[in-house]
Amino acid sequence: MKALIYHGPGRRAWEQTADPRLTEPTDAIVRVDAVTICGTDLHILKGDVPTVEPGRILGHEAVGTIVKAGSAVTTVKQGDRVLVSCITACGRCRYCRTGTFGQCLGGGGWILGHRIDGTQAEYVRVPFADTSTHLLPEGVSSEAALMLADILPTSYEVGVLNGRVRPGDTVVVVGAGPIGLAAVTTAQLFTPSHIVAVDPAAARLEAAKRLGADVLVGAGDDPATAVAELTGGLGADVAIEAVGIPETFELCTRLVRPGGHVANVGVHGAPATLHLEDLWIRNLTITTGLVDTRSTPALLDMIAAHRLDPTAFVTHRFGLHDMEAAYRTFSDPAGTGALKVVLSRTMTG
Amino acid sequence: MKALIYHGPGRRAWEQTADPRLTEPTDAIVRVDAVTICGTDLHILKGDVPTVEPGRILGHEAVGTIVKAGSAVTTVKQGDRVLVSCITACGRCRYCRTGTFGQCLGGGGWILGHRIDGTQAEYVRVPFADTSTHLLPEGVSSEAALMLADILPTSYEVGVLNGRVRPGDTVVVVGAGPIGLAAVTTAQLFTPSHIVAVDPAAARLEAAKRLGADVLVGAGDDPATAVAELTGGLGADVAIEAVGIPETFELCTRLVRPGGHVANVGVHGAPATLHLEDLWIRNLTITTGLVDTRSTPALLDMIAAHRLDPTAFVTHRFGLHDMEAAYRTFSDPAGTGALKVVLSRTMTG
Amino acid sequence: MKALIYHGPGRRAWEQTADPRLTEPTDAIVRVDAVTICGTDLHILKGDVPTVEPGRILGHEAVGTIVKAGSAVTTVKQGDRVLVSCITACGRCRYCRTGTFGQCLGGGGWILGHRIDGTQAEYVRVPFADTSTHLLPEGVSSEAALMLADILPTSYEVGVLNGRVRPGDTVVVVGAGPIGLAAVTTAQLFTPSHIVAVDPAAARLEAAKRLGADVLVGAGDDPATAVAELTGGLGADVAIEAVGIPETFELCTRLVRPGGHVANVGVHGAPATLHLEDLWIRNLTITTGLVDTRSTPALLDMIAAHRLDPTAFVTHRFGLHDMEAAYRTFSDPAGTGALKVVLSRTMTG
Amino acid sequence: MKALIYHGPGRRAWEQTADPRLTEPTDAIVRVDAVTICGTDLHILKGDVPTVEPGRILGHEAVGTIVKAGSAVTTVKQGDRVLVSCITACGRCRYCRTGTFGQCLGGGGWILGHRIDGTQAEYVRVPFADTSTHLLPEGVSSEAALMLADILPTSYEVGVLNGRVRPGDTVVVVGAGPIGLAAVTTAQLFTPSHIVAVDPAAARLEAAKRLGADVLVGAGDDPATAVAELTGGLGADVAIEAVGIPETFELCTRLVRPGGHVANVGVHGAPATLHLEDLWIRNLTITTGLVDTRSTPALLDMIAAHRLDPTAFVTHRFGLHDMEAAYRTFSDPAGTGALKVVLSRTMTG
Repeated sequence: MKALIYHGPGRRAWEQTADPRLTEPTDAIVRVDAVTICGTDLHILKGDVPTVEPGRILGHEAVGTIVKAGSAVTTVKQGDRVLVSCITACGRCRYCRTGTFGQCLGGGGWILGHRIDGTQAEYVRVPFADTSTHLLPEGVSSEAALMLADILPTSYEVGVLNGRVRPGDTVVVVGAGPIGLAAVTTAQLFTPSHIVAVDPAAARLEAAKRLGADVLVGAGDDPATAVAELTGGLGADVAIEAVGIPETFELCTRLVRPGGHVANVGVHGAPATLHLEDLWIRNLTITTGLVDTRSTPALLDMIAAHRLDPTAFVTHRFGLHDMEAAYRTFSDPAGTGALKVVLSRTMTG
Repeated sequence: MKALIYHGPGRRAWEQTADPRLTEPTDAIVRVDAVTICGTDLHILKGDVPTVEPGRILGHEAVGTIVKAGSAVTTVKQGDRVLVSCITACGRCRYCRTGTFGQCLGGGGWILGHRIDGTQAEYVRVPFADTSTHLLPEGVSSEAALMLADILPTSYEVGVLNGRVRPGDTVVVVGAGPIGLAAVTTAQLFTPSHIVAVDPAAARLEAAKRLGADVLVGAGDDPATAVAELTGGLGADVAIEAVGIPETFELCTRLVRPGGHVANVGVHGAPATLHLEDLWIRNLTITTGLVDTRSTPALLDMIAAHRLDPTAFVTHRFGLHDMEAAYRTFSDPAGTGALKVVLSRTMTG
Repeated sequence: MKALIYHGPGRRAWEQTADPRLTEPTDAIVRVDAVTICGTDLHILKGDVPTVEPGRILGHEAVGTIVKAGSAVTTVKQGDRVLVSCITACGRCRYCRTGTFGQCLGGGGWILGHRIDGTQAEYVRVPFADTSTHLLPEGVSSEAALMLADILPTSYEVGVLNGRVRPGDTVVVVGAGPIGLAAVTTAQLFTPSHIVAVDPAAARLEAAKRLGADVLVGAGDDPATAVAELTGGLGADVAIEAVGIPETFELCTRLVRPGGHVANVGVHGAPATLHLEDLWIRNLTITTGLVDTRSTPALLDMIAAHRLDPTAFVTHRFGLHDMEAAYRTFSDPAGTGALKVVLSRTMTG
Repeated sequence: MKALIYHGPGRRAWEQTADPRLTEPTDAIVRVDAVTICGTDLHILKGDVPTVEPGRILGHEAVGTIVKAGSAVTTVKQGDRVLVSCITACGRCRYCRTGTFGQCLGGGGWILGHRIDGTQAEYVRVPFADTSTHLLPEGVSSEAALMLADILPTSYEVGVLNGRVRPGDTVVVVGAGPIGLAAVTTAQLFTPSHIVAVDPAAARLEAAKRLGADVLVGAGDDPATAVAELTGGLGADVAIEAVGIPETFELCTRLVRPGGHVANVGVHGAPATLHLEDLWIRNLTITTGLVDTRSTPALLDMIAAHRLDPTAFVTHRFGLHDMEAAYRTFSDPAGTGALKVVLSRTMTG
């Protein structure tokens, strides 16, 4: 089969490799019908994620069809259309037993395209298929489902649910890239009064507005002033960090009211300063986390019921074999306006 | 002043009576600018609520203007436009300290138009004004605010919040009168996948659809079948009882899935049968309750932010002095289609 | 091997039968080292549980040793000492993914000694061994662990956790049989101010006192008066039903304060009356449920750390082959004082 | 009357001053029967709290007797024995309506001995007496109650409740001064499996052991190793910071397992470093906060029921007029072993 293989920092290739095979009775082999690229893949390609070894097939998001299932697999079978989620769950360990799949101790967690071969390929082996795939209901398009492979549950669980967004809240989302925009989208499931999007890029703020933010804070604006105006000077109920640098995290801790929540979604490479000399008294709750994908079934339900439509995130479409072009497009969001790219098996590449 | 006075079962009159006066330093006198009639008022008039004594001014919902405030009142002052809520809260007792204002032990709870004179009058004395009125923000119309005096927070707190409606849920609302319709409306603040409205009256189901229900179960239909179709045979996540008779309550307990919630909002006059021989094993949670109005500030925020519009509940408008006509209209919903009637001081009566 | 086989209502025998074998790659075969008898087994023997077919080996509680594990079993292996819990969990279905193992839709739930052969035998096949057994830490005796097979997690999860017992609460436990006594024991994990035990049998009240109840309500006493004295007339915070008849359930709904919790643990055979005409306004929460055993790891930790000692529940000890004698003792608690009997492989029978 | 007056950094005097008088209808004047000194008072005396102006009477903890109550006070009256808590609550603002009294926006919060005259005096004016005092039940000694004026609810709410300690948890308390020891004490209300106390001072560790810690980590020991041994290398469920310096806060973030809670109780004067490059993926929850005293009624109940005994914190007793001696003793804990000192009106000074 063909797959996108990482050959060390800066080097990738869409090339021929061996088909995956079942290795455990709990495995399934999935034919990839649609796949996308994540910002994390770009980090890997820069060499920022040393746990990824050269030779690895990248990708941790896919919609596909089961072509073979191990003898212990009971909930999906050959021919089923499934979502392959960024999180693999053994279903057995202390964390999986409590729905905290992202912290799986039994060989799961984020492993696809990281510690084992991933989804940017014609076929992928999915370990623990019963607890690591989601059967797709009719009426949910592959493209919509694909947005649930990582970006939507991540923003929803780590941003909106951890941040405990409630009806009537004022929510600030700092960073309007794909993850921040997904937080803007999923925050609305709880009907906050206001969603403030903060980003220096005007195009991203435009997207935030289109997706439901009602207050935009751009390059020259002061987010604290905007939030104070909305809240009688008190501060936001929830601030969602969706960038991953110290400055934006620290901004979030300043923007929330006493008793407010800061939900960190961003992937950080450096420490931040926590101003406990101010914050110790302010009843702040700060959360961090990796997605568990425990919300995926509910999000699928909402798509099927037309209560949520994540296809607005798809800005570019390619055939699966156009992997290189897709990477080029996704790597240059400022130039291409790319949010999420979708590569499909059935499109002519 | 003029007021609607209860003179014993079946007898009411809009007649002259003494103006109210401050009796405690925590009181305020409020000029009634808009007032509505509740189904409970009709029950009182039938003689169903023996704690209401003849001579009582009815009414427990109003929007008005503070004309005089006691010496201990600090958060509202003369001239302020306020919501007078159905629940009076002493703010000091065990229950008020935990936000459970409806169970106030310090002289509050539902007392207006019940144990003390109420709001269907030109003026009303509001005890514990600091904790029993809500200052109205600009941009919230009196009519919209008036819907928060009882019906919306009741359905929201006792139905939606007690029922723990979550994004993606299937919610059944049994009874599509004003309270049930308010549950249909406020359930949407949590973006359920499906809202099933159950009522024998076609006109009420039409209203439910207009307000956001997506599945309607009418006179000849089987609610269990409708719910089973939506949920793969499993049952609803939440059932909200909004009628107040044993049959509808028992229906709710049959409609929810294992692990589901039955939130009783209806006012009951007779016991129901709880089929524990079936339910003991089903992880059911059943809640009952009186509104606390603790959600009122958030609901006001959502109205101000145009995230919630309760004015669709207002079907008829009168001048304050047309109290008798308003009662006639509201007493005959089948004939008039009345949901909520609003009587306003500034309309010519 | 020998096993206790149900031969229809009133008929049981400890007799020779075929050894169990692995049938699925997720199965394990466990040698039974210690086993107990549950009140449910007596109900089955009376013919009260028609889903149990003649020929079935009874028993759903055991501590044992893995003698063979299927090819897909990864977390326990031959030689491991494990707790076999009353709940079997597929680990894959909607309910198991959220830790609600008791409601398993994938072939689990309460199946041992019910729909498949159980633990009152020399060997037992345990399906889904990874998610249906608990590896026992050193320092936890088999006898202590055996009390976690059903009785303690049931009382703790369905009574104490569902009832949301909090430090400082007044908790009423109605019924001081084994399940009620286990509720008395596990309620103390949350340090309530008072635990009121209600039972007509003096010997059971004595046991309740020994296990930590501080107020005893016996045959001639009025539980409402006792609770009122403790709570200034307000009512209990939590009432735990541990009998399973309408009268005791209805008593529980009368004993709690507004805002209180009624947690039903009893297994009911008949409907109860729910006095909604009184209760609709009282902010009551009523819960029912089957144990999920999700608390078992924490309970094991507490035993290992000497924070919890359930061995006081063991009143009688037998060899495994004394099954008939054990049944006779357990069937006559009034005469024998039996709470829990333990049958051990290593005791000479 | 006599009172302890702050005269600027380093200067205090127990001297004659005017008796307090009612200034608002919601005030009460309380005769101080027992009072204590807080570490915060020492900070004020060093000049670390510039919001305290010279001339201020210090002290925010007392047990006393109402001698005069304003016209709007309804829940306490002359002659009542009350706890005067460190937090004054207006009972009316957005925060007080939700039980978040420490963040009161209506003139309350921590004001006694800070923005208004405090309790280290013969009499004290308590604003909003209805919501800022707690009537003491018989059977609760003044000394025991006094421990609830600040130290116990602070450790319980900001440490144990914010940290969500659960039965079976491993809890680390970093810092074994009075606040840390109160966390050790109140953590046990939830029956954790292990309480690890970390402090360089052997005497403090001894006290921690006496109060219930089962693992002690002293000057030469590595807390991470101790926690790893208890938790199979996973980390603690909850870490409670009770020192207030960057190093101990950062230690707490390293000691908890994925999904764990860090509850900051310490008062910080400098920022800490938050290692988001490690923590972003670890599902951490960090909380900060000021006490709300919302738990005070439950803690009082537990004392009355003999479930909690905080008198072990009282190491030294003085007459009220021995204020200077009490300050000297409390200022030198290393020399005197002082945890909490109590000054009583009825002891001969």
